[in-house]
Amino acid sequence: MPVFTVSNRLCVIMVGLPARGKSFISQKIVRYLSWLSVPSKCFNVGHYRRLMGTVHPKAAFFDPDNEEGLKLREMAAERALEDMLEWFTAEEGIVAILDATNTTRARREWVARKLRANSIEPMFLESWCDDQDLILRNVVELKSTSPDYEGVESEVAIHDFLARIKKYEKIYQPLDESHDKELTFVRLINVSQQVIINRIESYLESRIVFYIMNLHIKPRYIWLSRHGESIYNVEKKIGGDSHLSPRGLQYARKLPEIVKQSAGDANLTTWISTLVRTGETAQFLPYKQLQWKALDELDAGVCDGMTYYEIQEKYPEDFKARDDDKFEYRYRGGESYRDVIVRLEPVIMELERQENILIITHQAVLRCIYAYFMNVPQEESPWVSIPLHTLIKLEPRAYGTRATRIKADIPAVSTYKERGSSQLKDPQ
Amino acid sequence: MPVFTVSNRLCVIMVGLPARGKSFISQKIVRYLSWLSVPSKCFNVGHYRRLMGTVHPKAAFFDPDNEEGLKLREMAAERALEDMLEWFTAEEGIVAILDATNTTRARREWVARKLRANSIEPMFLESWCDDQDLILRNVVELKSTSPDYEGVESEVAIHDFLARIKKYEKIYQPLDESHDKELTFVRLINVSQQVIINRIESYLESRIVFYIMNLHIKPRYIWLSRHGESIYNVEKKIGGDSHLSPRGLQYARKLPEIVKQSAGDANLTTWISTLVRTGETAQFLPYKQLQWKALDELDAGVCDGMTYYEIQEKYPEDFKARDDDKFEYRYRGGESYRDVIVRLEPVIMELERQENILIITHQAVLRCIYAYFMNVPQEESPWVSIPLHTLIKLEPRAYGTRATRIKADIPAVSTYKERGSSQLKDPQ
Repeated sequence: MPVFTVSNRLCVIMVGLPARGKSFISQKIVRYLSWLSVPSKCFNVGHYRRLMGTVHPKAAFFDPDNEEGLKLREMAAERALEDMLEWFTAEEGIVAILDATNTTRARREWVARKLRANSIEPMFLESWCDDQDLILRNVVELKSTSPDYEGVESEVAIHDFLARIKKYEKIYQPLDESHDKELTFVRLINVSQQVIINRIESYLESRIVFYIMNLHIKPRYIWLSRHGESIYNVEKKIGGDSHLSPRGLQYARKLPEIVKQSAGDANLTTWISTLVRTGETAQFLPYKQLQWKALDELDAGVCDGMTYYEIQEKYPEDFKARDDDKFEYRYRGGESYRDVIVRLEPVIMELERQENILIITHQAVLRCIYAYFMNVPQEESPWVSIPLHTLIKLEPRAYGTRATRIKADIPAVSTYKERGSSQLKDPQ
Repeated sequence: MPVFTVSNRLCVIMVGLPARGKSFISQKIVRYLSWLSVPSKCFNVGHYRRLMGTVHPKAAFFDPDNEEGLKLREMAAERALEDMLEWFTAEEGIVAILDATNTTRARREWVARKLRANSIEPMFLESWCDDQDLILRNVVELKSTSPDYEGVESEVAIHDFLARIKKYEKIYQPLDESHDKELTFVRLINVSQQVIINRIESYLESRIVFYIMNLHIKPRYIWLSRHGESIYNVEKKIGGDSHLSPRGLQYARKLPEIVKQSAGDANLTTWISTLVRTGETAQFLPYKQLQWKALDELDAGVCDGMTYYEIQEKYPEDFKARDDDKFEYRYRGGESYRDVIVRLEPVIMELERQENILIITHQAVLRCIYAYFMNVPQEESPWVSIPLHTLIKLEPRAYGTRATRIKADIPAVSTYKERGSSQLKDPQ
């Protein structure tokens, strides 16, 4: 991954009518980039409008002929931009998302001018949709998640929301391939059935485009599991390529039943690493199987095969350095959590493209995958607890992912090493 | 990387007037996919037309009203398709490219029908261009590389080629976002200033699209060098993270001068790995520097730090297995050449996007990068000779890459181990 500096600063300006998935896309981009350590933040203009007091506006508020409404909405956009500019400076931000409708050319020109004056590259991202079923599904979802409709009766909210969309339609000027040909933009037509890309040049722009092209919104689940308890786990050693312990094998035998209870007859694919303990854990599952080298455990370099006690004895400074910054600490001749994330990126991209997937892999790798879906801050991700013999079910939804943990009820050692803790020679 | 089967079979059908870079794009896609071990092949209809006897056709041959010409060109297209279908079956092909103009809807429908009848997914890739300078540059390039103009005087060839384009223009029907909305297609407008993507769904389609979006045609160079001779090189050990030997340091000191002689005042960026010997080699260079973990040497796992002699003694079967299939052989707990290629893919993608780059890395990694640019067959790539203290200059051009080797004239050990050879305990 290149290192990004002030010269790479970018603002993704969302464009589109209400209920076109703009906030969903914004959140996903922020999630993806933050996970890759690119400082990113979303600025939602509706949020600023509510801060200014317009909490439960009726559709009429959004009428282009409503001067007071217009003025308030302009002020909200101004405040969002001000905060954004401050964030770029104060927090050394790299990618901001301006989550608003930005439906008129005049508004878009105003935003782009402000950004360019501050040496921030504007990139427009329009979500255009005429699939009425999809729009209605979004409206139904939004009326229950948007603070604008908190406490409002369902039917009333939906009716008002549809009326609000009509107000915007009156003045909506979509991005146009000829008129806007000098701008950097992406147009998504009906999710990503058709995508139009104009003047995408920088690395970050191209990464964002490829990422959103791979998103889909079909309902699906992702199941995560560590391999069953291994011989090395029992011996308190890290790394290696050992076989399952008898209890680990018991977990492997029980796994098909646990997965079936959670997944029913869903058609799923199992992904495993190239290490024997994941293959042994997956051996009784009836699903199609794919092996990824990128799912191998974090490489502990010279410490591979050692216990934490031995590491502490032999490399006391490293042991401490790892506790101080576990995300950045790279084992001598091995990897850091940051390194694991870089090699996991194609796995995440493919996960976004796929439907039901069951991943059987290793503690550090699962922490990184879990952090991506559950929005765990970078510095916390190496400390997430992912116990052995536990199946985690992830359900990606419009606003975040829901996680459920299913315990197999088969005992296993704990491999969790608390921050600042040391290990006794004989853990008994 | 997923494994591809018969259900992933895809044909990229090129569309566009002559001199729009169709063959360039076709070759690049084949190169990229083959490097990633996806069986791919390009079928050029012009080649079949020449095989049928029409070797130096005049522009009039391509007139849509020339019935004989039309019939011959249809026959050539049929033969190309027949060969392609045979290749899919006989060689378990996954991605074929049909390199031809395919300028009419009727022709495109005919091709798509044939493919679908054989369970091959058609994907159209149109290169559309109205940049007259660019077209003229392509025409000039083509008249000197196309067999159609072998032995023909320059001016005559250019004149005839432009007349040929005019013949195609008469009947050209570009892909259309409304009319063709049911098809899977990509339209590149003026290289990739604007890109329109329609119904791209499969993994392979999406990889191909992202790849071609990242290609550029600006002139540039890539320089490759191994680190200077290291202590481990001298001790005949593989892997590790040792410092440079005195001669290695001498190479590092001389490198700025050698690069300058080759690059002049070009603005370049140096890419190094995370191992100390590449950093030490780059330390006297005046250019911007970027560190990639993905450029680290092939991980020799349990053999890291051993000499070939020791490996041969301790793991004789592995030693032999590696000689028998060096590309696939994975060191215990380490990597194979195939693994290295998977982790190098983002490096190659970024190399395609960049202009002048100097890469200082390791023997196995350079073999993989070299194989990508120089079209080295997979099984040969682990055997390419990349000596120490030698700068390699790559010049990517429309039809292949030109490589020049510049020796630094500083002695170094040879680290090349011939196929089937063994190593004596004391190499002196």
